[in-house]
Amino acid sequence: MNYHGGGSVPTIRCVANDKYSMPLHPVLIAGKWRPANASGTFHAENPATGETLPDEYPISDWQDCGAALAAAATAAVELRSVAPERIADSLTKFADAIEARCAELVEIAHQETALVKTPRLQDIELPRTTGQLRQAAVAAAEGSWALPTIDSKLNIRSYYAAIGPVCIFGPNNFPFAFNAVSGGDFAAAIAAGNPVIAKAHPSHPGATRILAEQALRAVSSSGLPPATVQLLYHMQPEDGLRFVSDPRVGATAFTGSRAGGLRLKAAADAAGKPIYLEMSSINPVVILPGALKERGEKIADEFTNSSLLASGQFCTNPGLLVLLRGDATTQWLESVKQRFEKQSPAPLLSAGVARSLSAGVAALREAGARLVTGGAPISGPGYKFANTLLAVDGPQFLAAPDRLQQEAFGNAALAVIAEDEDQAETILEGLEGNLTGSIYSDSAGSDDALYTQLAPVLRSRVGRLLNDKMPTGVAVSAAMNHGGPFPSTGHPGFTAVGLPASMRRFAMLECFDNVRRSRLPEALRDENPNGRMWRWIDGRSTQNDVES
Amino acid sequence: MNYHGGGSVPTIRCVANDKYSMPLHPVLIAGKWRPANASGTFHAENPATGETLPDEYPISDWQDCGAALAAAATAAVELRSVAPERIADSLTKFADAIEARCAELVEIAHQETALVKTPRLQDIELPRTTGQLRQAAVAAAEGSWALPTIDSKLNIRSYYAAIGPVCIFGPNNFPFAFNAVSGGDFAAAIAAGNPVIAKAHPSHPGATRILAEQALRAVSSSGLPPATVQLLYHMQPEDGLRFVSDPRVGATAFTGSRAGGLRLKAAADAAGKPIYLEMSSINPVVILPGALKERGEKIADEFTNSSLLASGQFCTNPGLLVLLRGDATTQWLESVKQRFEKQSPAPLLSAGVARSLSAGVAALREAGARLVTGGAPISGPGYKFANTLLAVDGPQFLAAPDRLQQEAFGNAALAVIAEDEDQAETILEGLEGNLTGSIYSDSAGSDDALYTQLAPVLRSRVGRLLNDKMPTGVAVSAAMNHGGPFPSTGHPGFTAVGLPASMRRFAMLECFDNVRRSRLPEALRDENPNGRMWRWIDGRSTQNDVES
Repeated sequence: MNYHGGGSVPTIRCVANDKYSMPLHPVLIAGKWRPANASGTFHAENPATGETLPDEYPISDWQDCGAALAAAATAAVELRSVAPERIADSLTKFADAIEARCAELVEIAHQETALVKTPRLQDIELPRTTGQLRQAAVAAAEGSWALPTIDSKLNIRSYYAAIGPVCIFGPNNFPFAFNAVSGGDFAAAIAAGNPVIAKAHPSHPGATRILAEQALRAVSSSGLPPATVQLLYHMQPEDGLRFVSDPRVGATAFTGSRAGGLRLKAAADAAGKPIYLEMSSINPVVILPGALKERGEKIADEFTNSSLLASGQFCTNPGLLVLLRGDATTQWLESVKQRFEKQSPAPLLSAGVARSLSAGVAALREAGARLVTGGAPISGPGYKFANTLLAVDGPQFLAAPDRLQQEAFGNAALAVIAEDEDQAETILEGLEGNLTGSIYSDSAGSDDALYTQLAPVLRSRVGRLLNDKMPTGVAVSAAMNHGGPFPSTGHPGFTAVGLPASMRRFAMLECFDNVRRSRLPEALRDENPNGRMWRWIDGRSTQNDVES
Repeated sequence: MNYHGGGSVPTIRCVANDKYSMPLHPVLIAGKWRPANASGTFHAENPATGETLPDEYPISDWQDCGAALAAAATAAVELRSVAPERIADSLTKFADAIEARCAELVEIAHQETALVKTPRLQDIELPRTTGQLRQAAVAAAEGSWALPTIDSKLNIRSYYAAIGPVCIFGPNNFPFAFNAVSGGDFAAAIAAGNPVIAKAHPSHPGATRILAEQALRAVSSSGLPPATVQLLYHMQPEDGLRFVSDPRVGATAFTGSRAGGLRLKAAADAAGKPIYLEMSSINPVVILPGALKERGEKIADEFTNSSLLASGQFCTNPGLLVLLRGDATTQWLESVKQRFEKQSPAPLLSAGVARSLSAGVAALREAGARLVTGGAPISGPGYKFANTLLAVDGPQFLAAPDRLQQEAFGNAALAVIAEDEDQAETILEGLEGNLTGSIYSDSAGSDDALYTQLAPVLRSRVGRLLNDKMPTGVAVSAAMNHGGPFPSTGHPGFTAVGLPASMRRFAMLECFDNVRRSRLPEALRDENPNGRMWRWIDGRSTQNDVES
């Protein structure tokens, strides 16, 4: 998921705070939609046409950031005494409220992103979003996410509890499901009991505005503190650095470019503030010879679909293929080439994505990759790039592994052709941390020895290892890991998708030592508060009460 | 736990690599005790006498660090295919091997630290150390620590698995229980399946050497890779920074001074390497008026014992008292003063600790604290400091909260006298993150309203909240949290004590998506591998197999 930042905003202009030439959308701070303290404004654009959209949005200055942080700090204290069931109620009501404005959301998100209305926006992403919110509601009310642990003999008890205000920087590529004010990070942070300050992605402010309106309604209707949900559309980069390192912040979640993520990480790290980043990933796919022989055409279909889905603008897009040299590989690449050329590319999300894709493909070519097909923008209207396949031989890849594994976010992929099996292993050894890694092998067992050689090397470099499957599907499952070693994320122990694990990113470990029973949080009292919560009591997992 | 670094090493001299004037202790790299590549050497000293001890130890240069990292990287790969039961066996054998040299260990640790042989070293710290190793063995073999999670319908499975070579920087104050080659971090890192490179604390190299000898025997006897345990006695600060950010490192654990910890943190953060730090903590203790009235003398005893235990050289030493102004408080401080003056101080761990304690007390006085008793070093032999109590009024504390909550590691404490209840709250609001926070209240309920006002403020600023209890006891319990908000540690979600939670610091989240059954790690197969492991399967915790 990629390319957060000003680059994708076409129209930014500086204004005096009190002299807007036309109505400027307000920001959501402390429960009120109020005029922004803006250092500038921006418009979104329709990437299918390149046209600027009429609505004008503010770039908040530090006054807005500070006001949101102050309100969030107060809300965080208030939320500590709110029952998890009420938080769950709010998340469920939010899901309902999104569905109530489904058509409007799909329409505006389509205008702002050029993603297709059906199936993508209406039938896939919107239900995924409401599904995540409802799963988070269930997890919040049930409570096992907090890993409550009780040593009844010593009367020491601990669990994970809300960490404090969470800043969420949303990406450009999922206007609903990873939106800072409705997506996976939002659901997890709220479910863990924290207020959220959402920093919208400026490429889809209209969809974000509607989502925030519905979020505020849900929060109000459930009686949560009004500042549980706040929204800023945009801020200056230096304010972003100050924002994530502010003493009032509990933690930050960021999904976007590596450059932007690393800057925020440095600021948060220096202040000792947890920050969870999803920065970049090329998601290597290794296709072993037996699989190529057994079902090459089927795999070519799977790869093409996964690689070109939404013009490849997925964080788990398969951007790097690893194959062994041979006639079968040559033929397979030719058959992928034909598929890439046959399928007409969908628009990219913004002018910024188009520019960076051009630059990324050029960088790969300069580093030694040869063009198999594509490689150039397609003339307008809007932002499109020819479906692009590049190839490079193993020795050449090994001569410049860093340059050849730079992400070219969009509908482009690089095939690396290893000379032999050991070179394939060496290539994998040179990979940076990635979100996913896939290995295709045949069903008869002829690839098994090579799988055994390569899988451990890939395993330690990715968060999710797949067999015989492309990585673009990211199921919202308790067992999912949407995370991985640096630099795909900032820490390999956390996932951004999958409940309840994703909630623990936004929590601190709280221990109660000899604390009197009546003063304990409900989750740590002798009685199981809802009869369903799993707790680790005296060396075993149980839904029972503490035995007296 | 504090004051790691060269400051506590009395005798450092630079030598040409091949010209040692007397036998220099070898380092443990890749399973062999071999001559160090040394940029200098050092001796420990006996802090009770100030005498330099005869053994000479090397300060390794980067060649040693690099060799240890290379061997650890290989061992990490080999350990992936070692059954957890074998790792558990090695930890148990190590505990036995420590006990086999108990008398020798106690003798040398006493010489190097001046901690008393009984009860401290022999009857408390050594059994704690072997107990931790045996608990880690049980946790490793049982496997629930890894939070195995299975979605059987989607065939997505995940768990925590070894992160790779772990560098451990041990502190000065626990020669056994937090020693880099035998302590809590060591036990957790090994139990999670990682090789350890131990960086000894240079104030007790002799105890560390014996522990490493026993660790190597245990590792060899269990058939683990020889480089599972490696030891360097000392390194240059710049090599330390390079060490924790090396690409071959999985994670680092550090216990020591804030300055040293922050330097290592910056280096590791920039390289995207997880680092777990325990840096400093003053462990506020709030004594409410009812408790003072009800059992002031008892609390004065408890505080004195906790504050002066091992000359206050505990990471959870109660360094800050918060009391309300009044005659009872005045009398109570007088009674603590008498106790402090009556008890003769034990030696400090090193000349460096003595210097920093003098400097710390001076800094508190310069910031406005007045001396109640103590405040000066006691003349030799050895390093002693008068038991020291300081006091400051609330308004003065609030005028310089940062300067007045600097840690003075050792037998010194500062009492803050709040004008009233609201000022007590304001004082707590100004506290940095700490490992612990205690509140004493009366049993009749007269303090309850004030407890309700203050506890939430303290709760969010500490890892462990205690009632009616001093913080120096850190039970090795599954429910313990020996962690807390920055700057007491680097991340409030992790604990350094308490199994199995402390193991998850040294693990990455590994997900297997559609991976064929025979290729799954045992913990994620349909059959529960040992019948005891708790796994989260399809929405519930169970020891059963996956239902087919």
